Amino acid sequence: MSETLLSSRNLAFELYEVLDAEALTQRERFAEHSRETFDAAIGTARSIAENLFAPHCRKNDENEPQFVDGAAVLIPEVKPAVDAFLEAGFLNASRDFEAGGMQLPTLLSQACFCHFQSANAATTSYPFLTMGAANLIESFGNEEQKQRFLQPMIDGRFFGTMALTEPHAGSSLSDLRTRAEPAGDGTYRIKGNKIFISGGDHPLSENIVHMVLAKLPDAPPGVKGISLFIVPKFLVNDDGSLGKRNDVILAGLFHKMGWRGTTSTALNFGDNGECVGYLVGKPHAGLSYMFQMMNEARIGVGMGAVMLGYAGYLYSLEYARQRPQGRLPDGKDPTTAQVAIIEHADVRRMLLTQKAYVEGSFDLGLYAARLFDDTQTLATEEERKSALELLDLLTPIVKSWPSDYCLKANELAIQILGGHGYTREYPVEQYYRDNRLNPIHEGTYGIQSLDLLGRKVSMNGGAALKQLVKLVQDCCQRAEAHESLTALREPLEHLLSRLSTVTLSLLGDLMKGKVNDTLANSALYLKVFGHMVIGWRWLEQAIRAEEGLAKGDAQDHDFYTGKLQAARYFLTWEVPSMHHDLAILEAKDDTCLAMQDAWF
Amino acid sequence: MSETLLSSRNLAFELYEVLDAEALTQRERFAEHSRETFDAAIGTARSIAENLFAPHCRKNDENEPQFVDGAAVLIPEVKPAVDAFLEAGFLNASRDFEAGGMQLPTLLSQACFCHFQSANAATTSYPFLTMGAANLIESFGNEEQKQRFLQPMIDGRFFGTMALTEPHAGSSLSDLRTRAEPAGDGTYRIKGNKIFISGGDHPLSENIVHMVLAKLPDAPPGVKGISLFIVPKFLVNDDGSLGKRNDVILAGLFHKMGWRGTTSTALNFGDNGECVGYLVGKPHAGLSYMFQMMNEARIGVGMGAVMLGYAGYLYSLEYARQRPQGRLPDGKDPTTAQVAIIEHADVRRMLLTQKAYVEGSFDLGLYAARLFDDTQTLATEEERKSALELLDLLTPIVKSWPSDYCLKANELAIQILGGHGYTREYPVEQYYRDNRLNPIHEGTYGIQSLDLLGRKVSMNGGAALKQLVKLVQDCCQRAEAHESLTALREPLEHLLSRLSTVTLSLLGDLMKGKVNDTLANSALYLKVFGHMVIGWRWLEQAIRAEEGLAKGDAQDHDFYTGKLQAARYFLTWEVPSMHHDLAILEAKDDTCLAMQDAWF
Repeated sequence: MSETLLSSRNLAFELYEVLDAEALTQRERFAEHSRETFDAAIGTARSIAENLFAPHCRKNDENEPQFVDGAAVLIPEVKPAVDAFLEAGFLNASRDFEAGGMQLPTLLSQACFCHFQSANAATTSYPFLTMGAANLIESFGNEEQKQRFLQPMIDGRFFGTMALTEPHAGSSLSDLRTRAEPAGDGTYRIKGNKIFISGGDHPLSENIVHMVLAKLPDAPPGVKGISLFIVPKFLVNDDGSLGKRNDVILAGLFHKMGWRGTTSTALNFGDNGECVGYLVGKPHAGLSYMFQMMNEARIGVGMGAVMLGYAGYLYSLEYARQRPQGRLPDGKDPTTAQVAIIEHADVRRMLLTQKAYVEGSFDLGLYAARLFDDTQTLATEEERKSALELLDLLTPIVKSWPSDYCLKANELAIQILGGHGYTREYPVEQYYRDNRLNPIHEGTYGIQSLDLLGRKVSMNGGAALKQLVKLVQDCCQRAEAHESLTALREPLEHLLSRLSTVTLSLLGDLMKGKVNDTLANSALYLKVFGHMVIGWRWLEQAIRAEEGLAKGDAQDHDFYTGKLQAARYFLTWEVPSMHHDLAILEAKDDTCLAMQDAWF
Repeated sequence: MSETLLSSRNLAFELYEVLDAEALTQRERFAEHSRETFDAAIGTARSIAENLFAPHCRKNDENEPQFVDGAAVLIPEVKPAVDAFLEAGFLNASRDFEAGGMQLPTLLSQACFCHFQSANAATTSYPFLTMGAANLIESFGNEEQKQRFLQPMIDGRFFGTMALTEPHAGSSLSDLRTRAEPAGDGTYRIKGNKIFISGGDHPLSENIVHMVLAKLPDAPPGVKGISLFIVPKFLVNDDGSLGKRNDVILAGLFHKMGWRGTTSTALNFGDNGECVGYLVGKPHAGLSYMFQMMNEARIGVGMGAVMLGYAGYLYSLEYARQRPQGRLPDGKDPTTAQVAIIEHADVRRMLLTQKAYVEGSFDLGLYAARLFDDTQTLATEEERKSALELLDLLTPIVKSWPSDYCLKANELAIQILGGHGYTREYPVEQYYRDNRLNPIHEGTYGIQSLDLLGRKVSMNGGAALKQLVKLVQDCCQRAEAHESLTALREPLEHLLSRLSTVTLSLLGDLMKGKVNDTLANSALYLKVFGHMVIGWRWLEQAIRAEEGLAKGDAQDHDFYTGKLQAARYFLTWEVPSMHHDLAILEAKDDTCLAMQDAWF
């Protein structure tokens, strides 16, 4: 049977040949783990994803949540799937053994999780959001909050949300209007409206814990005046039982073009003045708490984009192998049999392009997950800090590059299926619709690009950028051992060198205060930077493929050769195409910035 | 009120400043027309499109046709809209006065038609398909067929379809299996199954005339054995009244990701052995007939892609002007008011990119329509033949480039609206879904690229290519009169020169019989060729804008300046990015071709 979620051979390649997951078992935190426990967890994830998540992916899309009597109603298949996910422990895959977790490295919890993302993006969102909310309380909540709200989340009885966006404040969080008034008893009364709150209502759990950004009466203006509150759907009594319904009203559901199985809600907090909230951590520090959790969330979003791309790639690959149509250009004799469309050069191009985008960003996503483990478990604080800097730098890429290019991969999957691909009788059009969300939520592409160029590349004197450049150079150096990789290595070296020059020049301009001009083309910068990073990850994979080939396992020959071909595609077809964008960046071209409203 | 279908200033610019529509009134066929009659027709089209087509565009999408008792049921708004279209004469806009038409130039009928395409792609499909079917009968049918089938189509009583695709034969028409047996009485009995037949059933007309490709018993194999048949839903008596139901069964409806208001049908012909068909023209010549009608149909499809892009561009432009969000990078003071998002450089980039793609391909589509007029009304046969050659060459670009880039425009429109753009509460996501069909139907992108490189550029000794090169060179020469255009002209000259060299090299390889290798990267070739063509059309627009500016009409200053800025964007940001693709083509790079099935 062909694999539909992801290639398990490719996952094993990533974990054990590229990212050396086994080395993590040398660290104290993961000492009880082994390749066997890793593979067992992956096997369980695959099985649940295939058997309980994938089968209702289309049904989720065709039967979006309904707003009935003030509540959201889902199709019945969602709860058993999520329950199985919980029972198997994936909600707490990375959490301590003592806290009921599996204490897996994030690399492995992500490797498990991506099976669910591929099988059913919408259903997977409910536990994903809960994990994010739980992590926030774990990191910044007090003991009572952990007892009252976190523990039931860990137990799978309460789910969670992230409630940031308001009707007039999406990307611009500094303009939030939701208010929190002290009630005199240590709690707060929340008042405001939030929109696009995913998982904001559903019947999957006893309670829903909203992590709400709001402003205290004495809040300074802007992002430094945002505080974080726990606002449960139902109040929780001291003994842990559910109390009365909190003043949080489901005002309505949004109807999306894709990702339809996940409720996207409008929530009114405090319409009756009785919405109880609990301050998390210190006043006015809410946004910094959110951002400290962002790396993990954004890896998750990026991985979600990858996995939708992956699902489409595998489906279109299988289709191309099965579907006879036409003949090669030099063999038009209509009395001969039609060939499978995978024989057509342009179909191969569309498959190879998908492979390059999907497997390149899959590698990057897992690399980032492993880096997250480094931030937690490397031996010294200095090493951990250094890992965190690199992860901070890479996060906008991990989130945004797959959101853009794996959406393109989905577009190609539809094209391979032709007219069939355009119908809802086949799954690829849904992947495309689902994936269109990813460049928007958790920080748009534009916001990520400002974060990268305006903040990340220069932070701490460019320390993270220097780290990255060294890693890429080191990779190129190792590639020199393989003469066959020269044609792949050189374009990367060339791009890295020019990108470094252009970056210095741009940072110089930023230092001179030319902020608007310099950041104007930041989206191009993100694209080029992303190509450099994915190019690096492909060269790394190519080195591992050469090493694998050298071992001479005949069974893996095709796999490694395919890796080398995809690396060749990305490094020789895609990477060099960035030089024109670099020229625009280098020239500080103001074509877009200078365009005026009245001229449109 | 802001315009939502297209910019009428831009349409006037195209018609009267770029394409000199008034000059057509010097030709005998159009002598009774004038700018006034042209503008009156456009005004009528705009009014009907705004008042009867646009209002049910979303409803069409949300209530796709239902299969009820063997027939397709549409929402009630479709018929009044189509009726108004018919009553205003747009079905026969280009047809002779004597035949009940308006005898408008195709340039003008297309300029009218595009309003409907922008307002409601799905509803517009019904008359569009009818026009194509009617043109086929008009060109190749006999007098009796014209009397019996064409006249009621002209009268708006019968509608039409194009029935080509079969379950196992989409792009590869040579593998059609539908059969036509002579019945002995001059008619034929048709047997076979067709899929993806748009407009294959609906309640909008008394009868539906299917133009069906099928094979006669003595058909030679392949495309040279395909014949064209008229197969009506209801037989037509000698007196023109409807006879009994023909043996054409609606087997089912396809459910598409977009363009949902148009029925996409599976039709069974002759399940009961009683499907009557009428041979059009000569046996085995059916595909050539189809292809002779292709230019007009493909201009229509390309224009459809443009107009979905146009609608999304205008909507996102208006949204960007209204939506306050955030502040400029150098003015983060949260106590100041938020700016409209059109002030953000990256939003301007996304708007300017849309403008460049949409208005560039809008110009090309109208240019092609005018060229079609030249093929019909230029003075000498030689001139007409020459115009037809150029149109043949440009057709794959006219069809495919907008299908690709105006889809990207729609993607950007969603991005500008952010989370709102992803919901079905706003129209841009529907445009994106609707437009995804265009790179697939009427010949996929890949098929068009093979047509361009494998056939069109070399036909008649490259005569059409030489014509095109001369036109572009001439445009560049005229641009030299404007020093301000130097930076725009040079990238086009550079691209044209290199594309010419690469083309010669590729054609040389084709001559040597290296067919598979040379055509392997044809999709890249189409992209580069398309950029050259659109770059040319932008330079042409830039020249006209400079001329307009020189006239000094203050009211138009912003309009012309915007044209120049969009031209600058396309010619300096987009055109030079093609050189890497040219390098791949020049190197006859076999990365994709060499990829093997087993390596994926």
